[in-house]
Amino acid sequence: MDRLGMEVAYANAKKSYDEGGVPIGAALVYHGGDGEPRVVGEGHNARVQKNSPILHGETAALENAGRLKPDVYRNSTMYTTLSPCSMCAGAILLYKIPRVVIGENVNFVGEEELLRSRGVEVVVLNDEECKALMAQYIREKPEDWYEDIGEKIRKD
Amino acid sequence: MDRLGMEVAYANAKKSYDEGGVPIGAALVYHGGDGEPRVVGEGHNARVQKNSPILHGETAALENAGRLKPDVYRNSTMYTTLSPCSMCAGAILLYKIPRVVIGENVNFVGEEELLRSRGVEVVVLNDEECKALMAQYIREKPEDWYEDIGEKIRKD
Repeated sequence: MDRLGMEVAYANAKKSYDEGGVPIGAALVYHGGDGEPRVVGEGHNARVQKNSPILHGETAALENAGRLKPDVYRNSTMYTTLSPCSMCAGAILLYKIPRVVIGENVNFVGEEELLRSRGVEVVVLNDEECKALMAQYIREKPEDWYEDIGEKIRKD
Repeated sequence: MDRLGMEVAYANAKKSYDEGGVPIGAALVYHGGDGEPRVVGEGHNARVQKNSPILHGETAALENAGRLKPDVYRNSTMYTTLSPCSMCAGAILLYKIPRVVIGENVNFVGEEELLRSRGVEVVVLNDEECKALMAQYIREKPEDWYEDIGEKIRKD
């Protein structure tokens, strides 16, 4: 059941990579109502493309979705190719999104414990494509990546 | 020393109110280097004006500042007219902004304890103008306000 959401998230991450940007993508999938799960928002990190420090994968997907009623968020899952940072975890908590599916948490471990401690279901897929794309990017453009997580570049 | 930052934050909140938007404003003030404190970013909630669920006061100020080096954030203070929600608190943690000055936390209490638990200095000014503007807005447009914090509108 998580295939659709992660495919859309990964497609957004790949698009960002192809544009020279940070390759992290996300999708917000609504599974309320009677119908099939439906992507209501998708996006990717736009630090490079839009000079933005707040458009990460998850926040970009929320922005793409626009203004939603509280009940939509509460019946949705956030799919993201990489473990969510504190800002994106905070956005998930703000809107009470009950479930987060993470492509991988090898290249970066975000606020998974905080999410779990607040009752959010966190699933880590350990996806090989997500891991490989992110690892390649960090090798190629470490400056942009460390800037994205507010860290000074490591010299080791 | 906190006058400049809160004046800019409040001016942004008032601007948003005058535009029909959620009246929460913020300013990021850099106090590193040898010079005077300097506003490097400012903004206001843009849920109404830009149909945005992620442009809160603090995130709008960060977006306005654009891409900054890690050291700039680490020598800055975030001023916000209202106690920061989990998304904005998460953004403050992401960029390791060491100090947050809050206009008021009467109309909404955000993630002050989370920030303090991670070592952020949190100052609450209990500012009468900030309180009055926000209270007026919540009375006038409760639907937009509760949507902004992911809550269903209260009928009490």
